[in-house]
This record gives sequence, structure tokens and C-alpha cells, in this order.
Amino acid sequence: MLSKNKIKLIQSLDRKKIRDSSGLFLVEGNKMVEEALNSDFRIESLICTAGFLDQHPGIRSKANEVIETDSETIRKASLQQNPQDALAIIHQPSPANSELDLSKLIIALDFIQDPGNLGTILRIADWFGIENIICSENTVDIFNPKVVQASMGAIFRIKTQYTRLEDFLSKAVQSKIPVYGTFLEGKNIYSESLTTNGILIMGNEGNGISDEIEHLVTGKLFIPSFSSGKGSESLNVAIATAICCSEFRRR
Amino acid sequence: MLSKNKIKLIQSLDRKKIRDSSGLFLVEGNKMVEEALNSDFRIESLICTAGFLDQHPGIRSKANEVIETDSETIRKASLQQNPQDALAIIHQPSPANSELDLSKLIIALDFIQDPGNLGTILRIADWFGIENIICSENTVDIFNPKVVQASMGAIFRIKTQYTRLEDFLSKAVQSKIPVYGTFLEGKNIYSESLTTNGILIMGNEGNGISDEIEHLVTGKLFIPSFSSGKGSESLNVAIATAICCSEFRRR
Repeated sequence: MLSKNKIKLIQSLDRKKIRDSSGLFLVEGNKMVEEALNSDFRIESLICTAGFLDQHPGIRSKANEVIETDSETIRKASLQQNPQDALAIIHQPSPANSELDLSKLIIALDFIQDPGNLGTILRIADWFGIENIICSENTVDIFNPKVVQASMGAIFRIKTQYTRLEDFLSKAVQSKIPVYGTFLEGKNIYSESLTTNGILIMGNEGNGISDEIEHLVTGKLFIPSFSSGKGSESLNVAIATAICCSEFRRR
Repeated sequence: MLSKNKIKLIQSLDRKKIRDSSGLFLVEGNKMVEEALNSDFRIESLICTAGFLDQHPGIRSKANEVIETDSETIRKASLQQNPQDALAIIHQPSPANSELDLSKLIIALDFIQDPGNLGTILRIADWFGIENIICSENTVDIFNPKVVQASMGAIFRIKTQYTRLEDFLSKAVQSKIPVYGTFLEGKNIYSESLTTNGILIMGNEGNGISDEIEHLVTGKLFIPSFSSGKGSESLNVAIATAICCSEFRRR
């Protein structure tokens, strides 16, 4: 049975304050819960139907507690519009203490606000084999349920950390690590030579890369538009991230 | 004054049936309404605050009727979570009768279901100077308010038509127009030579390109993943569209 208190806890994980104080986050949907169960993340509660348990023999041992319930109760607890047969309460991993491998490409996010964008960027990073994402402190919380769901499981694979982006980039520049970002006055990304390592900064949805960060960029890039006349003024930040990653990787 | 009936009409434009029978659609937000006013689309009703009218001298002549009201009333009428100072009821353009220019790159959509994805694809097409999008009859309606808002104005520039995709592509193949699509067994898009014209098919979010369409594809492509081990299994369809368009245009 799923207690009222547990339903309350599930729904409260929509709030950052509760996620921060409890160190927990919520994952919903059969596929996402399967990915959680196959990851190194510590599962506090697995809440699912008898059918889901039948289809996944041996999963009882992977969660601290397993609560079997019916679809109707899952629907009641869920934050999703179309809940499925399983959801899970999961422990947030402790922030990685290990040094970043600066010989690889890293994405840095400067004030990404939209959870859907952050989730999609995680999924893109996962596809392009980018293992680390550095987020500015004002970037939306990675454990926001909308980020988690939009990441389609990438949240279990990509290492993220929140930090003062300015300090992080200053150190990178001192260590001669290339720092890239897209700007209207940047060089054509299709013809510019790109290094295999470096930090690729993606900026805020409305304002792009902030002034404090811009002066740390060593390689200003530009994705050219092929629109004749008055076309779109900008690309969505996740779309721009995909095009940049594609350019870095295709060479 | 905004009448109760008008508010009802605005909200009913969320439904395809009503959009189809009335031939109208809804645009919300200052920037989107500005784009509508600057387009060739015929504006039935402009509903906005006095402040919006002040900031846009001369717009009264651009709409069939202008209804000045307050923010609170706009909030009441709006389908958006954060309504701004203006919304507009707009006539859907009559379907383009002119022949498509097959010497250019065209996007064809095979059962795109998510309005956000379709809107984002319109915005991508706009950026990459792709003027025409052909939609399968089961693709989500382009005048769905969520599509319109996600397009960020591209809806006023891109020509779309809904048709039996199979028939359209059969004719294209007969005319020796290259037909591209992404498949797991396709050729690496980064190294494959691509024509400057052709039809690029993007498939359904869950199932990709359908079997009936697949046999009409003359150029099977693949966006390689750079993930080591078990990474994401797929890219979001809008992300894949962006990467494909970028590859077609960068050459």
C-alpha cells in the first residue's frame, strides 16, 4: 500500500527546497525507472504495479523498499499527465569530487532556465559522448522532475556539477584550455578549426552568454543562418547545443 | 471590451475541430503578435492593452477589429501560463496551390505527434532557409496553439501542406528527386555526399519513419552516436532535424 504520507513526499519532490533537504528526486515511467534500476543510483522507493514487478524479475533487491500498488494509486501520486506502471524515489548522488578530465570536451551552461531545455541538453551530451556538464549556480536544478523526464535517462549517465562558472572558466583559461561560445560576431563554426578538448558554453534562452562569462571566451563561434530575408532571429539553445556538438565531433 | 463570446472563441481555438470549421487560429504574446502584424496573414481580431497600442502606432489598420482591454482580461482569455499584453485571432492561409520548387531542400514529416517538436522544427527550417514543409495527414495540426507558440514566428514564414505522404514521395521518386531519411542502418551523414535539393523525411517520435514511407527512401542516412557504452538510444526528432539540416547546408 502506498501511504498518504508517501504520496505527499512524491509530490513534494516537485519543489527544489524539498529535494535539497531530503537529497531525493523523482523518476517516472517504466523506461526511466528501468534505467534507474540499471544505474549506480541508490533507489529509496520503487512504487509499481504487480505487472511491472512480474516483467522485471530480481528488481526487488535493487530498491531499499518496494511498494506494490495499482495504476489508479500511481495516477494519484504522479506528477505526469500520463503515468505508467512505475515511479521511483531516488537518492541524488553526492557531487563528484574527482578532477574533471580537461582533455575532453565539456559543456558549461550559463543560466539555462527551462527544464525541458536542460533535459534535452543532457540527452544530446549523452549522444555525443560528453561526460561532464558544468552548470552555473542559477541554472535550473538538474533534479527538477521536468529535467529528469526530458533527459530520457541521460541523467543517470552524465556527471553534472553546479559551480561559480566565472571561477571555473578563469582557471580553465589560465590552464590554456580553449573556451568556446556562440556569438553573433563569432567565426563560422562550419569552417573554423575546433580542438578536440575544450569547454563549450551555452547561454541563457533569452540573453545568451552573460557579460561576465563572455570575456573568458577564447573561441567565439557562430552558427550561420541560411534564411533569406527576415527569418528566425535565433535557434533554441538545445538546438544550438546539438549543432555545436555535432561540429565538434564530426571532425 | 472583450465579450464573453469572444473569450469563448479564443479558448475554443485550442480545439482542431473549431479551428477547421472557423478557419482561424490563435497567436499569443507581444513578439508573436508583432510578427503576425508584419506578416501577410489576415488578422481578424487584435486583443491588446492600451500600452501595446501606444507602442505600435498604426497597427489599428492591420486588423479587422481591435479590442482594447486590460491585462487581467487578457489573462482570463489566454491559454498561456504567462500571458502578455496582446493576442490575436488570425485567418489560416488557404493551402498553397503553387507547385513546390523541387530544386530546393524540402522537409517532409511522417506522423510528428508532439506540438512542441513541430513548432521547433518550423523554427529550425526557418533558420536553415527551408521554405516548405510537407506533413503527413496524421501529423499534429500546425495551427495548434502549442505549435504556433513553439515556432517563435516561423509559422508566418514557412509554407506547410498536409498530404498523403506516400503519394507525394512516390511522385518525387519518379521524378528522380532524392529522398532522404535517417535509419539505424543508414550511411554516416558526416561522410556521405548530399545533394543540395531533395526531400528530408523526419519520422515519428516513437517509431521513426513508417514502413510504407521507408521503401520510398533513396538515401538512408545515420547520425552516429559518440557515446561509449550504453548511451541514449535516440535523439529527439527536432534535434535530429537540426543536425540533418546543418549537414545539408554546411557543404
